[in-house]
Amino acid sequence: MDSQVARFEDVPQLYKRHVFACHTQRPPTHPRGSCGAAGAQPLWERLSSKIEAEGLSADVGFTASGCLGFCSAGPLMVVYPEGIWYRPSTPEDVDEIVEEHLKNGQLVDRLVMVFSRA
Amino acid sequence: MDSQVARFEDVPQLYKRHVFACHTQRPPTHPRGSCGAAGAQPLWERLSSKIEAEGLSADVGFTASGCLGFCSAGPLMVVYPEGIWYRPSTPEDVDEIVEEHLKNGQLVDRLVMVFSRA
Repeated sequence: MDSQVARFEDVPQLYKRHVFACHTQRPPTHPRGSCGAAGAQPLWERLSSKIEAEGLSADVGFTASGCLGFCSAGPLMVVYPEGIWYRPSTPEDVDEIVEEHLKNGQLVDRLVMVFSRA
Repeated sequence: MDSQVARFEDVPQLYKRHVFACHTQRPPTHPRGSCGAAGAQPLWERLSSKIEAEGLSADVGFTASGCLGFCSAGPLMVVYPEGIWYRPSTPEDVDEIVEEHLKNGQLVDRLVMVFSRA
């Protein structure tokens, strides 16, 4: 690069999409709740396996994250660069996110967590 | 939403930018290394504090992540939606990323980790 400031879009992208899935585990009685306590682990295992099984590993990054906030809404995951937050609760939900969003580039409306900023 | 498939860009964004910083800590002698062993913790504490001090908390999310890969290059962080990977090694590096990228929307060329896919 020369002395000019490069632009974001000039930087090669490692992944086409990058998934972050909350792995926070609090005790079941914890008042905040947690994605772990809401049953996240088997869902994220399926998500990770499905990404690989669908041959998406080179294009889709999968990273465990700490607390994403909104703990009572979990299990929560977010997909970038689109910035779409999903709250899957069944294996079928996970499969649909992989198939529709990660593979086909389509929003899975019914699983989106929509934020409204007051 | 109606029965039509919504588009990604129709979904309101929670954050303008979202930072994920690797918090993996392996023992110092571990052959893979880790961001933690490379001194990540004080850098991420500064990053988090600086985001708040600059008044960016409403626009910039900060989330701890698990291993992002490329362990020998750490400490590593990635900023979305731009998908820019940085490898800061000093407090000044962190400050520059906050000031230039997170606040002013400019790439910090000298700290970018560029990937070339063979």
